[in-house]
Order: sequence, then structure tokens, then C-alpha cells
Amino acid sequence: MSIDAANAKAVKRMMEARPMLTGVDEARRVIPGMKDNLLLHAGPPIDWPRMSGPLRGAVIGALLFEGLAKSEKDAIAMAEKGEVSFEPCHHHGAVGPMAGVISPSMKVYIIENKVHGNRSFSNLNEGYGKVLRYGAYSDEVLKRLRWMNDVLGPLVGGAISQGNPIDLRALIAEALHMGDEGHNRNKAGSLLFLKLLAPAISKTAKDSVQAAEVLQFIGDNALSVLNPVMAACKAMADAAHGVKGSTIVTTMARNGTDFGIRVSGLAEDQWFTAPAEIPVGLFFSGFTQADANPDIGDSAITETAGIGGFAMASAPAIVTFVGGTPKDALNATLEMYEITASENRYFSLPALDFRGSPTGIDLRKVVELGITPRINTGIAHKNAGVGQVGAGLVRPPMKIFVDALLAIAEKQKI
Amino acid sequence: MSIDAANAKAVKRMMEARPMLTGVDEARRVIPGMKDNLLLHAGPPIDWPRMSGPLRGAVIGALLFEGLAKSEKDAIAMAEKGEVSFEPCHHHGAVGPMAGVISPSMKVYIIENKVHGNRSFSNLNEGYGKVLRYGAYSDEVLKRLRWMNDVLGPLVGGAISQGNPIDLRALIAEALHMGDEGHNRNKAGSLLFLKLLAPAISKTAKDSVQAAEVLQFIGDNALSVLNPVMAACKAMADAAHGVKGSTIVTTMARNGTDFGIRVSGLAEDQWFTAPAEIPVGLFFSGFTQADANPDIGDSAITETAGIGGFAMASAPAIVTFVGGTPKDALNATLEMYEITASENRYFSLPALDFRGSPTGIDLRKVVELGITPRINTGIAHKNAGVGQVGAGLVRPPMKIFVDALLAIAEKQKI
Repeated sequence: MSIDAANAKAVKRMMEARPMLTGVDEARRVIPGMKDNLLLHAGPPIDWPRMSGPLRGAVIGALLFEGLAKSEKDAIAMAEKGEVSFEPCHHHGAVGPMAGVISPSMKVYIIENKVHGNRSFSNLNEGYGKVLRYGAYSDEVLKRLRWMNDVLGPLVGGAISQGNPIDLRALIAEALHMGDEGHNRNKAGSLLFLKLLAPAISKTAKDSVQAAEVLQFIGDNALSVLNPVMAACKAMADAAHGVKGSTIVTTMARNGTDFGIRVSGLAEDQWFTAPAEIPVGLFFSGFTQADANPDIGDSAITETAGIGGFAMASAPAIVTFVGGTPKDALNATLEMYEITASENRYFSLPALDFRGSPTGIDLRKVVELGITPRINTGIAHKNAGVGQVGAGLVRPPMKIFVDALLAIAEKQKI
Repeated sequence: MSIDAANAKAVKRMMEARPMLTGVDEARRVIPGMKDNLLLHAGPPIDWPRMSGPLRGAVIGALLFEGLAKSEKDAIAMAEKGEVSFEPCHHHGAVGPMAGVISPSMKVYIIENKVHGNRSFSNLNEGYGKVLRYGAYSDEVLKRLRWMNDVLGPLVGGAISQGNPIDLRALIAEALHMGDEGHNRNKAGSLLFLKLLAPAISKTAKDSVQAAEVLQFIGDNALSVLNPVMAACKAMADAAHGVKGSTIVTTMARNGTDFGIRVSGLAEDQWFTAPAEIPVGLFFSGFTQADANPDIGDSAITETAGIGGFAMASAPAIVTFVGGTPKDALNATLEMYEITASENRYFSLPALDFRGSPTGIDLRKVVELGITPRINTGIAHKNAGVGQVGAGLVRPPMKIFVDALLAIAEKQKI
């Protein structure tokens, strides 16, 4: 099979995947390989000494949340002594935005790809500002996480299993017609999510006060659906992995220190990494570019699957959040057609006459044209304990695409 | 005051109006001048003999709904004998989509313009297909209307009065950033409406089954917010009425037979009318252009206030519903800048670099340039009892703008 044919096969699998949100359960019960002393994190593998501030902050918070540590000091000591292990979410079929820390007791979304049979997982979204995924771990953050785990997760899970599962591919497609790009802007998608869940939430809540509380939380958080969307993209990307000879990128992920990619035609544990760039964007009041941590999070799985920065043409209003002009947003999408293998069959962009979104990053094109993927991203403060400070744009380092291409050339004797 | 100054004043009042949705109540209790044997209808004044099929159908349905007639035959006899009076919604501070029939027992939204103090009203939206506003009046239609009146209306009204009133100008502004144009596409706005109401609905429903039923109905109807949006536009347009010398159009409305406009600088009861055009568009399966009734409904109040067809640049996906291409949608908005007095301060269009939507139709420009306003519209079957058959685009007849300009020239001795 030629590389082109291998890529066509990989991208077809990516697009034809049909990720359905089927439930919510505890990470330790459903994520393959999850263990009691294991924390999953965003991006390629990394150990405590090299972790950036926001990832460390999220690790501290997760250990406090689990009750494994009694204090920040305890948590740091545990991490330093190696009493807790760290593995990428991506090694366990999971993804998490920003720090992406998933601990054993956390409730996670379960996504099933009805076409190819693979499953994926993501944690629940906490909203904006001081949140664990941006490295904050104050009492307020932990209290919210406990409420999410005890009330939000079970109620949403109950609502999903009571009604029909949620067709996330259809939800994403609709949101792209409503000004979302699916990564940094999930306003419409989150409202569609609310709409689909609201009647069942109202019916399954223990009382109307609890129902109201959960409906308010989901409705107020314009990122409510980000995590299921990311897991849907993960299910699509995983379906495209393992096609012999394919140069399609199946993972882009960052841990706050390194940016890593994986490629369909290479092994699952074969990462290509280089230091992550610092995103450039708009900052919340009181913060500046100098506060920004290097790029972090598994959320670049959205761009990997053809949405996010790749679908910005659909989301001109996003520039109020990430910077630039609507024309820049349009150009971002147009540029991504240069480095992708296909136009998406299901994700269409009205502003471009319903052209399919650019889907399936081809390593060869990235290297040949010198164009790296565009990623929309949140920006974390570089210190542990602070939280989100802005949102903006970033690209991966070119080196990892060159390295990956050399590796596949070596393997395939191109 | 020059005409330009008068127009600037009128359009400023239109834009600065702040319509808040403050409650739901029975038409006879809140609409000024509402009487027990009075039916309000869309468009300029019209009597039974000249009414088109869909308006007749809605009249029959409303008389059955009120219990004033026992059968279709009874209802027709009542109308023919003059036992029921007909007046435009617009003469009572109200608006209704399509046939726009509001009967005394119907629940209506109450909108208050917090800046200028005027109030406006609209009925509740029934959804798509076989519905009263398109002239259908089967048992299914009447049953839904009764449920809306007995369950939906009171619950939504209770939810609004329990929480804060809904700022409809802010809701419209946000929806325009989410792919809506606010007339034929209210997908995002309806979800924002659901989001704002859901917690309070859940708390005020008599039980969780009722809450779920209402959340489902609002969520499933992508036009849920159309009627409050129309009433908001009515409150804005009314605030702009009565500025001496102003050539700004403050009403565009159709009754299925005639298209009528009113102008700020002329009397409130001074309509300029001509036969309504037949909209051109896309038809539901089984129907064709030959089934279409002439243009009908008060919903052109949205275009009057600077959204709808005037804001199509924000809603490229609407072309799947009304026909044409995204480029046509963009051009519709660009053309409307030619005939309007201002760019909206609050309604911005991301696709046009956040330019304000074209607002305040200036009679002089319409006549001078020979460009009539563009209106997005639903299409009713021409016969009573059928319902909606499609959606498309239409323009008012040029004659009414010429007549209105002559009238104001006469009055002002221009």
C-alpha cells in the first residue's frame, strides 16, 4: 500500500468513527490500566522533576482530592519520593484538557466508537478561572471537584443512560454551524449538550433543587461539552492509528514542558517530543504574556481530528477570546488545508460554502511546506496554584514532525 | 430639525431601547384594548372577506380554542356575520409570527423597555409544521395550544418572575455571534433562552415530569425564542416611532394579503399597503412554490430593528433552510447597509469584522436607490388548515415606500 493509500485509509477511519457518549463512571472502574497510586496527565510522558508549575499544581490538587496527601507539602513529598506514578492519559485511552490530571476516584465520561469498537475517556469540566486543570488546588477548587464527583457526574451519567447516548459527531457538526470551533469555543456545543440532558436531569435528580443546581452549572459553563468533545476526537484519532505506512498524525499533546506527537504508522508508545512553545494571546485582567506557561493539554486532539484551530473559519467570534481578526480565523482554516489529507465528510464550515474541515495532518506536508498545525488553546499561569490567565494561539515545534518523518522513512524504507 | 437629525434620533431610540422579558400572562389581562370578542392578527388591518387561507385558518382555530365556536362551520359563520372583530397586533403593542392571531385567553410574553418605558407582547411559539400560526387548526394543533396555555406559559412565566427578567437585547447580540440571524434562524437564541430558564423551570414545576416535559418542548423547538425576540424588536421599533420628520420605517408587517409599513414621522394608524409578494424559497417534501401563500406575519419586525434578513451575514448556515449560498447571505447584509441610517451599537456581525448590523430603514434611501428591504420568512400553505410548507426570502412592494415618502413630504413640506 502506498503512503497515500495508507493515509486515505487512516483518515477515512478517523472520519467514519462514530463516538457516542454512553455514560459516566469512576476512572478506576473503567479506564484500562488505572491504578490506585497512578495519576494520568496530559501530553507525552513526564516525571515530577521536569513538570511545569500548572501540572505540578494539578498533581498536588489531585492527591489532596484523593485523600492520599493531607497537605501541599505531603503531596510534593509523595511525588518526589516516587510514591505516586505518572502516565499519560493517552496511554489509557483518555484525554484531559490543560494539566489533564485524572485520578482514580474521579468520574469520567465514557465514549464508545460504535463503528470501530474502541472506547475513550475524559474527566468533567470545571469551568473557567481557578480550576485544577490550570494548576489551582485551593479549597474552593477541591470543593467544586467533590461536588462534581458526587452530584454532577452521577446525575449526568444517569441522564445519559436513562435516555439515548449522545451522538457527539452530530453534536460537533451542529456546533460548527453555530459559531463554535470545538476547542476554545464550545458555547453552542455546551448548550446543545444541556438541551439533550436537561429533561432527563430534571427527572433523575433527587429533588428539584439538585436538578436546578446541575442545570445551572452546565448552562453557565461554556466549556461543559469540551471534555466529551475531546474524548470523541480521541476515539476518532485512535481509530486512525496503526495503519501501516501512514504519515497521519494521530496525537498532538502537551504536558506543559514538552509537545509530543504520535503517528498512525508507528508504534503507540513512540512519541516525538520537543520543548513546548509559549502561546500568544489575550490575557485576563492583571496578567500578561510573562505569566504564561508553555503550551499544555491534551486538547490539541481536537485539531488532530479536524476541528479547533482547523475549523476557526466557523468561529469568527472566537477572536475576542484568542486574539486576531475574523480574517485571521478564516486564514487559519485555509492554511490547514495545505497540510491535511482530506476534507471532513461530517464537519462542514458554512463560511467556506460548507467545505469539509481540513482533517488528518500529513507529516509529509508539514515538513515539505514548513507549515505546522495551528492550535487554539487556554493559557495557564506558569506557577502552580494560580489557574487560567488567558487564551491564545500556538504551534508545535517543527522538529517533532521532522523526527517523526525520519522515523517512518526509516521503518518503511521510503 | 433636519430629516437626518430626526432619523438619527429615531434610530438612536431604537438601538438604545432595552427590552426585558418580565413575564407571561393572559392576553385579556395585559394587552391594552384587548376584548373578549376581539382577535388580533398579523400585518395591517384586514377584514374576513379579504383574508388569505392561512389567516382564516388561524382565526377558525382561535375561535375553536376560545370555545367561541364549536366547529369550523360555526367559526366561519361567526366571522362572516361580524360576531368577532379583527384588529392588527400592531395596534395593541403586540406582534405575532405568520398569521399572528392572538385571542383573549392566550398566554403572551410581556416585554418592558426599561429605557423608554413602553411595553410589548407576543404569543408563545408552537414549533414547526402543523401549527395555528400557519393556519392549521386540527385537534392536534388545538391540543398543543391548550397544553402551552395551561402548562408551558405559566411555568415559563413563573420561572421568569422567580429569577431575573431576561435581557433580550443581550440575548440577541449573543445569538448573532452563534450563527443566528434572529428571524428564521433562532437555534442559538432558543438554547440561550433554555439555559436561562432551565434551573427555575426545574424548581417551579409541580413535579419533575412536568419540568422535563417543558424543558423538552423548549429545547426541541429551535424557534422557542422567536416570539420574545419579535416582541423585543417591537419594543425597539415603537420607541423609535413618533419622531417628527423622521423617514425611518418603524413597522413592516404582512397579513397574507397586504404588506404594510408605518413610518416614525407619521401617525400610528397611518399604514401604507400594497399586495404582498409570494416568498421564494425551499419547500418541505411534497410541497412546491405553487402551494405558497403571499407573504404573511409580523416577524418582519426583526428586519425593521436590524436583524433577520439584515443580519444574514452572521448566519451562513441559514441558506440550508431559506435557499441561496453563504455568499448571498453576506451580500444581503451588505446591501441593507445601503438603505439604513445606522450601524447597530449592540448587534455586531463577527463575519464583517464585528461591524454593527444595518439598522433603521430610511424610506428616502429605499426609494432613491430602488432597493427594498430583504426579509427572511417562513412560507405558509395558501389554504386554511394545512400549515408551514417551507421557508425563503421575500421583499416588500416598492410602491408602499414611495407612497410613504410622498405622505411625509406632504406633511413636512420637504
